Amino acid sequence: MKQNIPEMMLAVFLTEEGEQLATRRVPVPRPGPGEVLVKIAATPINPSDLARIRNVTEPSERLAFIPGIEGSGTVVDRGPGLLPRLWLGKRVACSSSHGTSGAWAEYMITKAMSCVPLPVGISDEQGAMMLVNPLTAVAFFDIARRKRHKAIINTAAASSLGSIIELLGKKHHITVVHIVRNKKQRDLLVNRGAEYVLDSSDIDFTDDLYSLSHELQASLVLDAIGGGLTRQIMLAVPYGSSVLIYGNLSGEQPEIDYKSIILDNKKVSGFYLGNWLKERGMLTTVRSILRVRQLLQSEIAVPVQERFPLDKAQQAVDTYVGNMTAGKVLLIPG
Amino acid sequence: MKQNIPEMMLAVFLTEEGEQLATRRVPVPRPGPGEVLVKIAATPINPSDLARIRNVTEPSERLAFIPGIEGSGTVVDRGPGLLPRLWLGKRVACSSSHGTSGAWAEYMITKAMSCVPLPVGISDEQGAMMLVNPLTAVAFFDIARRKRHKAIINTAAASSLGSIIELLGKKHHITVVHIVRNKKQRDLLVNRGAEYVLDSSDIDFTDDLYSLSHELQASLVLDAIGGGLTRQIMLAVPYGSSVLIYGNLSGEQPEIDYKSIILDNKKVSGFYLGNWLKERGMLTTVRSILRVRQLLQSEIAVPVQERFPLDKAQQAVDTYVGNMTAGKVLLIPG
Repeated sequence: MKQNIPEMMLAVFLTEEGEQLATRRVPVPRPGPGEVLVKIAATPINPSDLARIRNVTEPSERLAFIPGIEGSGTVVDRGPGLLPRLWLGKRVACSSSHGTSGAWAEYMITKAMSCVPLPVGISDEQGAMMLVNPLTAVAFFDIARRKRHKAIINTAAASSLGSIIELLGKKHHITVVHIVRNKKQRDLLVNRGAEYVLDSSDIDFTDDLYSLSHELQASLVLDAIGGGLTRQIMLAVPYGSSVLIYGNLSGEQPEIDYKSIILDNKKVSGFYLGNWLKERGMLTTVRSILRVRQLLQSEIAVPVQERFPLDKAQQAVDTYVGNMTAGKVLLIPG
Repeated sequence: MKQNIPEMMLAVFLTEEGEQLATRRVPVPRPGPGEVLVKIAATPINPSDLARIRNVTEPSERLAFIPGIEGSGTVVDRGPGLLPRLWLGKRVACSSSHGTSGAWAEYMITKAMSCVPLPVGISDEQGAMMLVNPLTAVAFFDIARRKRHKAIINTAAASSLGSIIELLGKKHHITVVHIVRNKKQRDLLVNRGAEYVLDSSDIDFTDDLYSLSHELQASLVLDAIGGGLTRQIMLAVPYGSSVLIYGNLSGEQPEIDYKSIILDNKKVSGFYLGNWLKERGMLTTVRSILRVRQLLQSEIAVPVQERFPLDKAQQAVDTYVGNMTAGKVLLIPG
C-alpha cells in the first residue's frame, strides 16, 4: 500500500523578517507512533491561519513552521498504531496536530486521530474545508445548549463560518442574530433567508441590538471582531450574558465594560478549537466529526473564490484578506 | 417596644449637579411588609458606596437617593412579618436593600432579612462594618473552593477587605498573593506576616507575578483596580485562570488580552455582593453571616481613622478617598 514518496517536498514558510510567505524545499517528514503522512490535495486559508501566523514570533519556530491548520489528501505513509494502519491509502480530511508540520505543503505529518476518511460524495476541495469551520460551529451549539442559551449573537456573520452557524441554528431551533458590517452584507444574508440581521455601521445598531437581544433572550455572543464593537455588544445584551471571543478581525484588543461585568453579571471567555477538542476528549471529537460529515453530505457546500499553487501562497493570503466574504481561497499543491 | 420616632430626619443626599454630598431634612420613612426601620448608630464609607454614587445618574433617582450600603443601629419600627417582629428593639448590623433608603441618615428602611442581631461583644462601630467586607471575603473563598483554585491573587491588598482576605486565606489554607501599589504598602503587609506581597510599581512586577502564580498555581485573580493592570495580570497568570472584577479603583476600564482569552482559556467575570447573595439564596446568606459573626468576634477588628457627623459627609468622603488604607471613615448620626 505504501506509495512512492519523494525525498524532498515543497512547503510554505515564513520569511525571516515580516510576515511574508515563501516556499522552500525541505525533506519529507517521517510519521512517528500514532501519526500518518498525508499527501495534500487541497488546503484552505482560514482566519485562524492568519492569527497563527501573526503569533509565531520565536525566530527558531519561524524557521521550522509550516502554516495550514487543515486540508484534504491521501494517507501515503504511517507510524505504528491501529488508526494509522486503518487510514493508510485512504482519502482523508485532516487538521494539523504537529507543532510545525502544517497543510500548506506537498506533505503533512499529523495524528491519525486528527483525520477522518472522506466518503466518495465529498470532493477534495470540500473535504479540505471540512474540519475547522464545521467543527467550530458544532462546538458553539454544544456550548449554547449546555449553558441553555435561547438565542445566539454571531459577529462576522457574512463569513463561511457564519453560514454554517446560520444553518445549524435552524437545525437546532436556536435563534441566531447575525451581525455584519455593512448594508451589502446585510442584504446578502436577508436574501438567503436569515431572519435577524443587524448592520453594525447602522446608526440604530446599539438600540436595535438591545431590543432584539432582550426580546429573544440572546445571551451568548460569538465575538470574532474585538475592539470597540465588543464593548458595544456587551452593553446591549441582557443580564448574565456570555461573550465568547474566538477571533480578532479588527486587530484591536476587545474593549469591555466593568459595570456590565460587575453589576450585570456578564462574562468574557474564549474559544479555541484545539483546546475545546482536547477538553472534550476523543469520544466527543468523533461524535462531532460524524455530525459534521452528515451536515456536509446533505447541505453545506462552501463557495471557493480562487485557487493558487503553493508558491503563490502570499498572493493567495492577500486575495483572501482583500475579500473574506467572497468565499474561501484554496492552495492546491498539485 | 415601639420607640419614640420623630416625624422628620436628617439624611445625606447628592446635590443636583456634580457628586457633592449635602444633608436635607425629610420625613422618616415607614417600613412595609418584611421591612424594619433602623435608627442608625454608625455607618462606614465603603468603596462600593463611591461606585454607587457615581452610578446614580437619573435626575429623579438623584433627588430621592440616600447613600450608605451598611450600618449598625437599633430596630425601632417594623412592618408585618415574622423576622421584623423578632428584630424589633434589637441592636443590629444591616445592609441597605431598599432602592433609595441608605444608611447615611438618622433612620434607614431595610429588609429584616438584611439585618443580623449584634452580640453584646461587638460595638456599634465594628458592627457597622460587619456585613459588606467580611461577606465579600467569605464569598471570594466560597468561589475559590467551589472552583478548586489552589491560590488567589488579590489586588488593592492594603485595604480593609485585603486584611480580611489575608486572614481567611490562612484559615482556609488557600495561599494569597497580595498585590499593592507601592513599597510602603508592601512593607506594611510583610511586617504583619503576609508571605507573598508584590508591588505593582516594581520594575520586576510582571516577571515576579508570572513565576509566583505558576509556581503556586494561583488561578483566581480578584481585580479591584482595572485599567492596564488587569491586562498585565492576565498575561502573567497560568492557563485557564479566572479574573474576577469587583471594583474599578483606577477609574479606567479594565484592559484585556484576546490571545490569553482565546488560546490560554482565561476568563473574565464579575462579582457584586448583592447579586451573589441573591443567587445563593437565603440559606447561604444566613450561613455566611454566621461565619462572619464568628470571625468578627474572634479576630477581625477593622481600624477606624476618623468619625464625622452626617452634615460633614462630603468631608468624610474626601478624607477616605485621600487615604483609603489608613482605616475606615465612619459617619455617626449621633
